[in-house]
Amino acid sequence: MQADIWFTEPHSRGFRTQLRIERVVHNEKSEFQDITIVETTDFGRALLLDGIVQVTEKDHFVYNEMISHIPCATHPNPEKVLIIGGGDGGAAAEILKYEKVKQIDMVEIDERVVAVSEEFLPSIAAKVRDPRINLIFKDGMQHVKEKENEYDIIIVDSSDPVGPAARLFERPFYEDTKRALKKDGILVCQSESPFFYEDILAKVSTTLQDMFSVTRTYLGTVPTYPAGVWSFTLASDAHDPLDVDESSLVDLDTRYYSPEIFKSVFSLPKFVRELVNQKR
Amino acid sequence: MQADIWFTEPHSRGFRTQLRIERVVHNEKSEFQDITIVETTDFGRALLLDGIVQVTEKDHFVYNEMISHIPCATHPNPEKVLIIGGGDGGAAAEILKYEKVKQIDMVEIDERVVAVSEEFLPSIAAKVRDPRINLIFKDGMQHVKEKENEYDIIIVDSSDPVGPAARLFERPFYEDTKRALKKDGILVCQSESPFFYEDILAKVSTTLQDMFSVTRTYLGTVPTYPAGVWSFTLASDAHDPLDVDESSLVDLDTRYYSPEIFKSVFSLPKFVRELVNQKR
Repeated sequence: MQADIWFTEPHSRGFRTQLRIERVVHNEKSEFQDITIVETTDFGRALLLDGIVQVTEKDHFVYNEMISHIPCATHPNPEKVLIIGGGDGGAAAEILKYEKVKQIDMVEIDERVVAVSEEFLPSIAAKVRDPRINLIFKDGMQHVKEKENEYDIIIVDSSDPVGPAARLFERPFYEDTKRALKKDGILVCQSESPFFYEDILAKVSTTLQDMFSVTRTYLGTVPTYPAGVWSFTLASDAHDPLDVDESSLVDLDTRYYSPEIFKSVFSLPKFVRELVNQKR
Repeated sequence: MQADIWFTEPHSRGFRTQLRIERVVHNEKSEFQDITIVETTDFGRALLLDGIVQVTEKDHFVYNEMISHIPCATHPNPEKVLIIGGGDGGAAAEILKYEKVKQIDMVEIDERVVAVSEEFLPSIAAKVRDPRINLIFKDGMQHVKEKENEYDIIIVDSSDPVGPAARLFERPFYEDTKRALKKDGILVCQSESPFFYEDILAKVSTTLQDMFSVTRTYLGTVPTYPAGVWSFTLASDAHDPLDVDESSLVDLDTRYYSPEIFKSVFSLPKFVRELVNQKR
């Protein structure tokens, strides 16, 4: 009989999820973090960074499609896109589906996350060497400091706000991203679970509303993330997703996102609407 | 230091959730099942039936609002409503918010679930003795067999399809509910997680599409349920929620549901749309 091995992930003081593990496929300590690939019973392979699930083969499509397609469908002409983080390559693969996009700068601090994803998660990372992707192994915070008026879209595909990633949820970083964006650019960031990190979501929303004329939070459902529902927040001085003409929306090769979903994701449950304090 | 006690709920062969327990408030074996009330660290009190979380004080509002308000807002004149199950009283409390509703028959097989909820979950069960609620302690399957052309709305607030509740997901039961409904009545049932019980959701949708002219699946996000996202399926021969006039929707005292949510919940992620095979 096979050993019954479970990986436990704490999400708060009183809530944990557990994934059953068939085997540990890979483990290493990089310069920045512990990188582990496990084969799970239910979700295919999963990438863990410092013991936190980043993606699984079964459900990564939800997160990656939602963080990518919503801004790409909102911007009328996204040519140059910056992804901060996203070393598994999943978000970049979605953005490549837009022919208008000429260049994707993918700034990942940890080269080993990309290498490990390429080797062990080929279904997610397959496109990471596409010629339109410009891989930059560097601190994303440093990268945006050095850019001005450069990007149509910036996607902040960060890990949770603990350790160094915490600064990716604070105003100085958002100000740098705003400077790195073109005047009509769009910023999107993952803004955590509205059930477990209400304070983070509220703060991200308040900060971005203070800095941009348009701020819109939307939700997606990612089973392996705490509480299953995840929030993303989009901000821009020029483009409001609520004003996007339905006829411009394209049905691409996706599993979660569709034009129908685009039109509905900004309708928030009442308690989330109150949390983010955004007017429709 | 307080003992670190966790309640574990298996959702599939490879996925579990764990809630930290402050104390076990109540436990009994009724004629039908084990009934336990625990005080959790994160979700307030929770009701467990045979070891499965039914409701928690913190997140019950999502499930109860979604199973109740969507049919009540779809039906132009809901006067008589049947709830099968729902012994915690949460769904009934939502339906009472509609003044048009004259009578709610709440058919719960286990009288002790109602009594325990009244005693230990007053914030959920407070309204269960309202004069408009007609409590019937009986097998819901038997009850619908005896009714004909009686209800405007039938809500099947069942537990998971294991043991006796399994028959609540099968065609003979749906045929009895259809007979118990008025000709223009609306049936709503919880149709499980689209991530963990795809086969159940697909089967419920197929069966109801075969029996009713309108079948619509919609989603809500309940953190303590597996994968966080839950499906409900509505069926009717007369009323299509997609045809409801926006001006008829009312903003009630709710925390999840709103007219905005009503208009968006039928927009399904592509993989769910394919699973339920319903045309918009």
